[in-house]
Amino acid sequence: MLNFSDHPHTRVNILTGERVLVSPHRSKRPWQGQVEDLVVDQRPAYDPKCYLCPGNERADGTINPDYKDSFVFVNDFSALLKDTPDEQYNDENLLLAESERGICKVIAFTPRHDLTLPEMEQPAIKAVVDLWQKEFVELAAVDWIAYIQIFENKGAIMGCSNPHPHGQIWAQRHLPVEIQKESVQQSQYFEKHGKSLLSAYLELELKKQERILIDSDHFVALVPFWAAWPYETMIISKRHVTTIESFTEAEKEDLAKTLQELTIRYDNLFSTSFPYSAGMHQAPVNSGDQSFWHWHMHFYPPLLRSATVKKFMVGYEMMANPQRDITPEFAADMLKQQSTIHYKNK
Amino acid sequence: MLNFSDHPHTRVNILTGERVLVSPHRSKRPWQGQVEDLVVDQRPAYDPKCYLCPGNERADGTINPDYKDSFVFVNDFSALLKDTPDEQYNDENLLLAESERGICKVIAFTPRHDLTLPEMEQPAIKAVVDLWQKEFVELAAVDWIAYIQIFENKGAIMGCSNPHPHGQIWAQRHLPVEIQKESVQQSQYFEKHGKSLLSAYLELELKKQERILIDSDHFVALVPFWAAWPYETMIISKRHVTTIESFTEAEKEDLAKTLQELTIRYDNLFSTSFPYSAGMHQAPVNSGDQSFWHWHMHFYPPLLRSATVKKFMVGYEMMANPQRDITPEFAADMLKQQSTIHYKNK
Ligand SMILES: O=P(O)(O)O[C@H]1O[C@H](CO)[C@@H](O)[C@H](O)[C@H]1O
Ligand SMILES: O=P(O)(O)O[C@H]1O[C@H](CO)[C@@H](O)[C@H](O)[C@H]1O
Repeated sequence: MLNFSDHPHTRVNILTGERVLVSPHRSKRPWQGQVEDLVVDQRPAYDPKCYLCPGNERADGTINPDYKDSFVFVNDFSALLKDTPDEQYNDENLLLAESERGICKVIAFTPRHDLTLPEMEQPAIKAVVDLWQKEFVELAAVDWIAYIQIFENKGAIMGCSNPHPHGQIWAQRHLPVEIQKESVQQSQYFEKHGKSLLSAYLELELKKQERILIDSDHFVALVPFWAAWPYETMIISKRHVTTIESFTEAEKEDLAKTLQELTIRYDNLFSTSFPYSAGMHQAPVNSGDQSFWHWHMHFYPPLLRSATVKKFMVGYEMMANPQRDITPEFAADMLKQQSTIHYKNK
Repeated sequence: MLNFSDHPHTRVNILTGERVLVSPHRSKRPWQGQVEDLVVDQRPAYDPKCYLCPGNERADGTINPDYKDSFVFVNDFSALLKDTPDEQYNDENLLLAESERGICKVIAFTPRHDLTLPEMEQPAIKAVVDLWQKEFVELAAVDWIAYIQIFENKGAIMGCSNPHPHGQIWAQRHLPVEIQKESVQQSQYFEKHGKSLLSAYLELELKKQERILIDSDHFVALVPFWAAWPYETMIISKRHVTTIESFTEAEKEDLAKTLQELTIRYDNLFSTSFPYSAGMHQAPVNSGDQSFWHWHMHFYPPLLRSATVKKFMVGYEMMANPQRDITPEFAADMLKQQSTIHYKNK
């Protein structure tokens, strides 16, 4: 039998169809490489130089309102622009390009410069979920938008250029690569089995109880069987809904609770403000029947051994295949052992 | 018309079939995020504590020979093992795993602890190319091996845990994800047009002269039209060969020359030992007719603006789509302007 904790093996990511290489025996490897700076996380509640704090000036001269919950605005350095004309380029089917239109927004999660999601109160996180939903609905009403990516880069190590707690939304005309992959896999499953891929997956994981971290009223947080990043997790809605638009009040409250608990466990793991990139995957909009899509949220955190030693997805991973050392089951056990009270409050 | 230097657009990577998002206007964005340590690159020619230097002891107690050129050995912390039994795991087609066998090797490029490829003499680089070829032939003779990944992680920022110049080879039983993608794209093109995808692409690029960096006797170095990393490049063999095994003496010498020139230009760009992950893509072995494959080598360097500011492939990129700010044409111009004499020798 395949021994997950001894034998090098590959696992299939059923959402993308791609494999990840697991090398469980390799976690014993000593580390002599790059060590990240320890984040000394002492910030004032208000920073006069932060372009996200209430009342401060932004790059384009706008003054932020004196907001009380969360606050959203169009990114002053948007990667996508609303007015890009539709153009195509094709040279012998070898040089292929197409213009892309979009809208990029920034969401400040709270006026408090010194907090992060796991340190916020549940009602404040609920306000962020409310705003995500509201923004999603508004952007989906723009008829040329096909996909809305809601995400957060947390921590300097994840390219976050301002420690004020915030996330982003990039909405665009065409489907991004990862969404195309997940659409193919989910629609194939739905056609064959008449239920969503993630409903079936969730059922199996709840039966096994090996990788489940949080089993709440409406959401489950788990380490996916095919996790590539050391402490990668997913939040899956128990109800098969295609987008955040469908979430009820009760669901939004439960999502806030689940987000809080998951990110507190993350912070507690290495007693540090745990960096990650997180993002929701949901059905494309203005794109016909998408009932096979099942809303979920990915967390990709880079840390491997401690607050300062991360996993590098480099040579072999870039050229050949994502690779991990510890098993997803080991990662799940470590996260399960963490307290749900934030280490700073102990 | 699509204006590459003004309009946000996507380009197709013809080797993988996947798109990259280009946001040319975004290079004006100020950077307030993480700044990498400046690598102070003062190393002794011999380091008594380095497990790659001649005569030193390795993790398993072996003493390195007093080697004069390059030196190869099986990785003491291999991610793949030779003796893993063949096993499969399938739970409802939702949890899918398979054991993987392989051999991981390390190649020290030179006994000199203080050098890097761009600082080595051409004959010394040629010796590395010779060893790559020899190793490839030997590993391809192992009948259960299907793919041989030759690569280098250069610089601590790319997860390289020892500054002694070295690369790696991971050979394995099944095809990794990236190779599967490139196989599909290349075989489709070959079937339809009767020539290799990269021969056709090279012809077009040589006609355009917009992204060509080096046009040598047997190899071309260029910034691919679909480059995702800021200064990503590719080396393509002019002759359509499937693997390194076919290279003649003249070709190997020319590859050494091309590697030297490309990496010197890289170092000169930001006057720093330029980090990257590089790797050859070539035909699978022991896997039937692979004549559609065309040998090439990718360079994925992380730096964006200077020796200390890198591009982060994070939230949007992980969840949705790779994204770049400067255009591939701008990157090519910058690299073309660099001298072919290493900045340390000026
Ligand atoms: O083998 P090394 O140099 O110890 O490790 C490095 O390269 C490997 C192959 O790309 C990666 O899996 C590791 O994350 C990286 O740190
Ligand atoms: O938009 P920001 O926070 O300035 O930038 C960050 O997130 C973006 C979206 O994932 C990335 O493209 C950038 O590389 C990263 O630094």
